[in-house]
Amino acid sequence: MATVREATLDLLRALGMTTVFGNPGSTELPFLKDFPDDFRYILGLQEATALSMAEGYARETGNASLVNLHTGPGLGNAMGNLVTAWHNKTPLVVTAGQQDRRHIALEPLLSAKLVELARPYVKRSHEPYRAEDVPGEIHRAYHTAMQNPQGPVFLSVPMNDWDAEAEPFTAREISHRSAPDPEALEGVARALTEARRPVMVAGSGIARAGAFHDAVALAEKLGAEVWADPNSPLSGFPQDHPLFRGHLVLAQKKVSELLSPYDVVLVIGAPVFQYYPYVPGPVVEEGTRLFHVTDDPEEAHRAAAGVSVVGDAGLAIRHLTQLLPDTERRPPAAPEPPSAPEATTPMSVNYLMRAISDVCPEDTMFADESASS
Amino acid sequence: MATVREATLDLLRALGMTTVFGNPGSTELPFLKDFPDDFRYILGLQEATALSMAEGYARETGNASLVNLHTGPGLGNAMGNLVTAWHNKTPLVVTAGQQDRRHIALEPLLSAKLVELARPYVKRSHEPYRAEDVPGEIHRAYHTAMQNPQGPVFLSVPMNDWDAEAEPFTAREISHRSAPDPEALEGVARALTEARRPVMVAGSGIARAGAFHDAVALAEKLGAEVWADPNSPLSGFPQDHPLFRGHLVLAQKKVSELLSPYDVVLVIGAPVFQYYPYVPGPVVEEGTRLFHVTDDPEEAHRAAAGVSVVGDAGLAIRHLTQLLPDTERRPPAAPEPPSAPEATTPMSVNYLMRAISDVCPEDTMFADESASS
Amino acid sequence: MATVREATLDLLRALGMTTVFGNPGSTELPFLKDFPDDFRYILGLQEATALSMAEGYARETGNASLVNLHTGPGLGNAMGNLVTAWHNKTPLVVTAGQQDRRHIALEPLLSAKLVELARPYVKRSHEPYRAEDVPGEIHRAYHTAMQNPQGPVFLSVPMNDWDAEAEPFTAREISHRSAPDPEALEGVARALTEARRPVMVAGSGIARAGAFHDAVALAEKLGAEVWADPNSPLSGFPQDHPLFRGHLVLAQKKVSELLSPYDVVLVIGAPVFQYYPYVPGPVVEEGTRLFHVTDDPEEAHRAAAGVSVVGDAGLAIRHLTQLLPDTERRPPAAPEPPSAPEATTPMSVNYLMRAISDVCPEDTMFADESASS
Amino acid sequence: MATVREATLDLLRALGMTTVFGNPGSTELPFLKDFPDDFRYILGLQEATALSMAEGYARETGNASLVNLHTGPGLGNAMGNLVTAWHNKTPLVVTAGQQDRRHIALEPLLSAKLVELARPYVKRSHEPYRAEDVPGEIHRAYHTAMQNPQGPVFLSVPMNDWDAEAEPFTAREISHRSAPDPEALEGVARALTEARRPVMVAGSGIARAGAFHDAVALAEKLGAEVWADPNSPLSGFPQDHPLFRGHLVLAQKKVSELLSPYDVVLVIGAPVFQYYPYVPGPVVEEGTRLFHVTDDPEEAHRAAAGVSVVGDAGLAIRHLTQLLPDTERRPPAAPEPPSAPEATTPMSVNYLMRAISDVCPEDTMFADESASS
Repeated sequence: MATVREATLDLLRALGMTTVFGNPGSTELPFLKDFPDDFRYILGLQEATALSMAEGYARETGNASLVNLHTGPGLGNAMGNLVTAWHNKTPLVVTAGQQDRRHIALEPLLSAKLVELARPYVKRSHEPYRAEDVPGEIHRAYHTAMQNPQGPVFLSVPMNDWDAEAEPFTAREISHRSAPDPEALEGVARALTEARRPVMVAGSGIARAGAFHDAVALAEKLGAEVWADPNSPLSGFPQDHPLFRGHLVLAQKKVSELLSPYDVVLVIGAPVFQYYPYVPGPVVEEGTRLFHVTDDPEEAHRAAAGVSVVGDAGLAIRHLTQLLPDTERRPPAAPEPPSAPEATTPMSVNYLMRAISDVCPEDTMFADESASS
Repeated sequence: MATVREATLDLLRALGMTTVFGNPGSTELPFLKDFPDDFRYILGLQEATALSMAEGYARETGNASLVNLHTGPGLGNAMGNLVTAWHNKTPLVVTAGQQDRRHIALEPLLSAKLVELARPYVKRSHEPYRAEDVPGEIHRAYHTAMQNPQGPVFLSVPMNDWDAEAEPFTAREISHRSAPDPEALEGVARALTEARRPVMVAGSGIARAGAFHDAVALAEKLGAEVWADPNSPLSGFPQDHPLFRGHLVLAQKKVSELLSPYDVVLVIGAPVFQYYPYVPGPVVEEGTRLFHVTDDPEEAHRAAAGVSVVGDAGLAIRHLTQLLPDTERRPPAAPEPPSAPEATTPMSVNYLMRAISDVCPEDTMFADESASS
Repeated sequence: MATVREATLDLLRALGMTTVFGNPGSTELPFLKDFPDDFRYILGLQEATALSMAEGYARETGNASLVNLHTGPGLGNAMGNLVTAWHNKTPLVVTAGQQDRRHIALEPLLSAKLVELARPYVKRSHEPYRAEDVPGEIHRAYHTAMQNPQGPVFLSVPMNDWDAEAEPFTAREISHRSAPDPEALEGVARALTEARRPVMVAGSGIARAGAFHDAVALAEKLGAEVWADPNSPLSGFPQDHPLFRGHLVLAQKKVSELLSPYDVVLVIGAPVFQYYPYVPGPVVEEGTRLFHVTDDPEEAHRAAAGVSVVGDAGLAIRHLTQLLPDTERRPPAAPEPPSAPEATTPMSVNYLMRAISDVCPEDTMFADESASS
Repeated sequence: MATVREATLDLLRALGMTTVFGNPGSTELPFLKDFPDDFRYILGLQEATALSMAEGYARETGNASLVNLHTGPGLGNAMGNLVTAWHNKTPLVVTAGQQDRRHIALEPLLSAKLVELARPYVKRSHEPYRAEDVPGEIHRAYHTAMQNPQGPVFLSVPMNDWDAEAEPFTAREISHRSAPDPEALEGVARALTEARRPVMVAGSGIARAGAFHDAVALAEKLGAEVWADPNSPLSGFPQDHPLFRGHLVLAQKKVSELLSPYDVVLVIGAPVFQYYPYVPGPVVEEGTRLFHVTDDPEEAHRAAAGVSVVGDAGLAIRHLTQLLPDTERRPPAAPEPPSAPEATTPMSVNYLMRAISDVCPEDTMFADESASS
């Protein structure tokens, strides 16, 4: 008879989650002992780092990453980056070791309110009712993380559960994306067809749906200019494409000004809209029609304006491309790129950015946390 | 300039919510004063009744009902029936009056932890940040309630918010259902096409999607027998149809026995499966293929077995009917109905039920809360 | 070896909780089967009633009452009256039956989010980690309910826990009240000693502490007039005592006017102050010194004004009476009682109340829920 | 008229909280602008560090420290150390900047679920209902943090609240500690008086109550040996006192063995008991009487055995010392200190610790996070 630990390892293999990110302590050891050769453990020196490495890995593999943290303080240290993973809609299965069930009622050292701690920034936060439920709950956590809109999920596992006898468990197949209502999409297609000068706002939902290239096909068939979401964790449209016009800004008044030349706006895979300072203004100017496709119902329900359609960005884009007729519409040419900023004292932000860009090799990868520049 | 109350009344008109169910007290009066002629107020003698009338009204109209309860004790009285509305996935916008914002920090009489009280059994539980946000939050509550999977939503409104000056607000259009992933649905269609003796299990999700008649067309095209979910709040299939075979039971072992003659099982709009006593057994017998269509991702993720596809039952049924070829398949004839139960002392449940049935007029409507018989 | 059910019955005997109030269903039956002869079960036709009978019983016996409700809908029905019990600080141990642990992960019929449902209006809401923990958690629930400030506590018990084998458990003795800091109390005594015309505001905390008669001794030694909290569930001072002056009202401005003749106000066992409509004004007029004794730290921290001392009202009153010197102070005579209200058409509230009072026998007990009259 | 910011700065001066620990971002700037000269800001390079510096400062000053963190990610980064501060019962007022109330309904960048995020590890987590409530809520947070049992408290402040017009607010005096029930304490004194060989277990609650030297007086009057809590954040008894016998260990069986020579055990300011690995055994051996004094009711209610008395450790110790008669009791001499560990290969932990100790100056301060050695 298999132990819960053995059954879980088999399940993780089936789910493609044999890479574990973490920083362990005693409450995680029963899971990690006799660590199998076909698994690998990526150690983060602090939990925040472990979680962020897992986030990058999930983005690159297209599969939920497994994170294993050390009870309350370990999960606590990672909460800041879990907030970010939640906003990025990254599929993560985050686990932490809870104290031994047999004396947890006495609240011994390293027992923790793990489920409550993780809850605000995960799709589901749970501690199994019985040791036997651990594999099933990891399975449920995985599919919850992978289901649109994706995001992190948390599971607390009492440390003595791993050695209990397992009940048989088999991984199941679950579809992770839904399509927009076809009737609603036909309405969007009609409005786009009739548009004089349509525009697309491309958000990271496009990248999450693996539809980066499909978005180009849609924009080209529609003859629409494209703006990017102001602060996307992932890019939904190539920034060197002739239809690309730049990034929106994070202020209500300014967004409506930027979008004022257009009569129909289609936002895909992004909020309507993402703001930061409070600068009141219209959402879009009067007469502009606004459509919104998102896989996140909450993003639809709280949108500031427009008609919202809920479904996967990739399925929406490909369906819309099918529905749209060929067009004669030719968008105006892109504006000239700004000339090189002048050297001043003190140096301007633009000058600095340009200077860095000039000296870097073509394939440099930037990690940028200077949101205000 | 309109008040928050006036702006909200206009919004409720736009959303088709001019019937209010409730039992008011002082904290609700600022909303109810000068009650407009085109609205009506249905008074429940206790809050549980008010909420349940609203639930029936939502089912009949196909639109979310508006419920207005009296702060903590009023919402508290209704929580039992809110649990039921949650399980029934009934769209409700439940509101309650909170104390005046200007002294709520002192926790005066009738201030209450309303958001926390409602939270476990609503899709969203909220108290607006500002009086000006009230109409927008009612709008968000409405769409959240109507979005698949539907359900109740709660909003707490401080009593002095209603007289504040409103910001302009306009109702928006939001699509409330998503379709299953077309690729996943093709997989289901293939399995059904190849089936020797397929069976459908029809749940209340079919009725919620307005697809009662579409389900008949699918069953007939497929040549499949049909069972009903054991404990559905709504009927997904006509019980007098020749393909109808009865209701599943609420126990694991028994369900697998009932489904053992079939090689492919398609569950639509119901959990896999709904159990009640703990009677362990296989979910379905080995070799039986199980498919599951539901608009509720959580229902998919926790299903006991099978391949789950997430999306609206009506869109799924119509799409599947299109994908399926005509069939030669002829299901076996329905078993004979049971003969009339004999009179015994004491009387058997079956005898009693038959006797009641015999004497009632054709169009009698039963409200039955004797789950065990 | 005893079962969890047997060990729990023994514990309940030790805690004096052999009377059970409730309305049971299948999830509670494993606890109720073979119900012992020395226990009694008081059936409420609805759960709200069961809980309120338990509240009255706790008040009369001075011991926490045991309430046993039927899973989600049953606990839900009782939530309104649980809100009231919470505000009344009544010690209750409320339990409800959860589904069988062995299939609760599938969320079968009658599984429920019980812990979350009760949480906002109990001191502790919990579901044991293991069947073996049930007696210990009932013990902890009992002492948490009885500890100052008293209040209801909730425990969810999975239905199959009752038949598990118990670990040995013995009831422990825990002190349920703390005394005010003696140094802080000396400060209060000094101010009262120096007062020209002191006043006491007596709240239900005095009754909860069993100090009704001690409060009379304090008022007499101090030579202070006494007002009652406006809306007390329990009486802290005899209303026919010559020092009694009536009930405060539920509005800020009016309270400060009523207290304006006094230079030192001592509020015991009540909030500072309980308000209802928002009628801004000073809490007490400038120059009036305000002291506050309560066993509820939160009541101290949110008080609108004054010096707060946290501790049991009875210990505080007896200690203050010791500290105070004899006084020459003689409060003014009580005002004449209002003359009989005149008969008018329509009848006045006061006339009606007087008329009822005139015709009722001396020992009539009133249950009054007309707060506004 | 003062702004909320000005009123808050005055309040912070009155509460002795003019030192701010944090790591700010845009949502905190409205509070920090024109930072007054009599305040100082201690910048942590990461939020975890800022919070821990504040914890040390609170311990040294005996007053709650003020921590100001940057919305969701900032609070998130600090959660690990907030878990620790919670277990250490350190009084902290932790604040974070929330987005501007006027557009928070749109969930702009840097809006966050702050109240939910902090809640599991603070005594109170709150966001004010109105800008005008900010000073009052900081006041309430301060007193909640300082009230026994002390601990961290969280307050979220929308960034535009600081510039709103303030309502007048004055700091109030609140007593922060309660005394044990005098009757319960007499019972403890009786048992100690009758004891053959009593023992004290001294926890960090003694240090929190400022009763380090009082504990020595009690132990000497009682003639009792003293053990320390195994893992105290603060020391409750001088380790070089002749009555000191060492630290208990974190395992149930071992604790009962260590305490087996004693007939009466008095635990003050510590849990009964703090365990870590699950090593079942008796809590204390049969016949040993166990008494427990703690200012934390939850610690009393979940204690594994014994008679618990709830109240301030310092007030308890001084009262007990008064109640106890002089004694002839003479505890056995302390065992010889262990001889110097021998050098081995590999080096033993004891050898290493001793070697470090030998070479360090007398006044070295150690920060030790190697719990297992």
